Amino acid sequence: GGDRSIKRVKRVLTYGDRAKLCSHSVAKFLFTTMEDKQTNLALSADVTTGAELLRLADAVGPHICILKTHIDIISDFKPDLVHDLSHLAEKHGFLIFEDRKFADIGNTVKHQYSSGVYRISDWSHIINAHALPGPGIVQGLKEVGLVKDRACLLIAEMSSKGNLATGDYAKATLKMAEEHDDFVIGFITQSKLSNDPNWVHITPGVKLTRGKDSLGQQYLTPREVICDKECDIIIVGRGITEAEDSVVAAKAFQEAGYNAYLERMQKT
Amino acid sequence: GGDRSIKRVKRVLTYGDRAKLCSHSVAKFLFTTMEDKQTNLALSADVTTGAELLRLADAVGPHICILKTHIDIISDFKPDLVHDLSHLAEKHGFLIFEDRKFADIGNTVKHQYSSGVYRISDWSHIINAHALPGPGIVQGLKEVGLVKDRACLLIAEMSSKGNLATGDYAKATLKMAEEHDDFVIGFITQSKLSNDPNWVHITPGVKLTRGKDSLGQQYLTPREVICDKECDIIIVGRGITEAEDSVVAAKAFQEAGYNAYLERMQKT
Repeated sequence: GGDRSIKRVKRVLTYGDRAKLCSHSVAKFLFTTMEDKQTNLALSADVTTGAELLRLADAVGPHICILKTHIDIISDFKPDLVHDLSHLAEKHGFLIFEDRKFADIGNTVKHQYSSGVYRISDWSHIINAHALPGPGIVQGLKEVGLVKDRACLLIAEMSSKGNLATGDYAKATLKMAEEHDDFVIGFITQSKLSNDPNWVHITPGVKLTRGKDSLGQQYLTPREVICDKECDIIIVGRGITEAEDSVVAAKAFQEAGYNAYLERMQKT
Repeated sequence: GGDRSIKRVKRVLTYGDRAKLCSHSVAKFLFTTMEDKQTNLALSADVTTGAELLRLADAVGPHICILKTHIDIISDFKPDLVHDLSHLAEKHGFLIFEDRKFADIGNTVKHQYSSGVYRISDWSHIINAHALPGPGIVQGLKEVGLVKDRACLLIAEMSSKGNLATGDYAKATLKMAEEHDDFVIGFITQSKLSNDPNWVHITPGVKLTRGKDSLGQQYLTPREVICDKECDIIIVGRGITEAEDSVVAAKAFQEAGYNAYLERMQKT
């Protein structure tokens, strides 16, 4: 039976294997970090002051591979903030992902990405965009981000109830990504879109138990995301930020996410 | 033949007629302004400094019903700017429409709309949102905007090449609007979605001649938008902002748009 069982082995690549395969430096750094820090946890740091954001980033930094920001909900934003945040990213070894969800035509997103008060392209390693406006949005963002060695995620599927990213939407998003794989490194999605190990699959809407909020958000567990849906990174927001102790909560999610990954590694 | 021709008359409502029918105060003000100022022109003021924005708004203000902003591309934004802009809106009688294209889950857009540096809900009469995330996005925005008597447009169709707002997307958007008609007053769209005279149909991507830009934007003419597609308002950006004389260009678009409206009124 030896031969037969060998034939059936379909080895699942580790994060470390995939770091070696990746061509984009941001994806390479990300997979390396995930392997080294033993974490597939992204923190959605939805706080509303600069001090809270820095405190959270410094406290939870050791447990995450990505810090996801909504810079436009910080009421006291000053350029110093992203400067300090970048230092924390270096100190703890995580990437900054501004969850801007760009959603306009190419000529507009170019300006939104590079200029204005936030100058997102100056400090955010990763940004995301809706595929909805068509390939021009990726072209526009790429004109800004490529020379700065930035990376983009396309939103292929959403976690909110009644969303319209259905039918062939994810397939069209994947195609758009494939045509811009020098800039797009993966997807915001609810399930794996492709077996190509270059793509990073990142899933928002994660809590330790299933459920929903009052505005249509629907939650999955780390095990569902990593084992069942075969995605790579869990994004956790209120499960950590609204916990009594955010570090304890982050550790719990780190462990749940990484154990789910190790379990998936056992599957052959 | 008299009876027969009377039977065939399907009177097109004037902007003034529709102002009377509307229940939302922002839509009522908008249609009244369009009738009084004889304009169906919205200016997309895509400039990158506060001074340019104010200069443009003051110069072109007499010729427009809506000033559309991308506040997040203004590099020297300060709260004074929206204060001054609001004064110009009162002086010239136009509405401010921050083209934020909200595109996240309800809980996030609530914060993006009300807080952060821009506090959009404090000064923007109209905002827009993608229908993509599902009804939660409208609920979230409404929790902020309704008490301030603000209005929302849903993006039903896009003007950019290869966009994914196809198939039943516009139909689903219309349904979402109908369920929130105390807050949603109409659509960003390329063609009329509904004969209900309450809905305002607003069309971006307008120039005096057809064409496209290098990032997939596709242009229609005022006559195509108002007469053929039966929309109500034309949004013009670079056709005015990049013209040698922005006032001359605005007047040309005002005239082209309003003449197209008068022509449509003749159709029975």
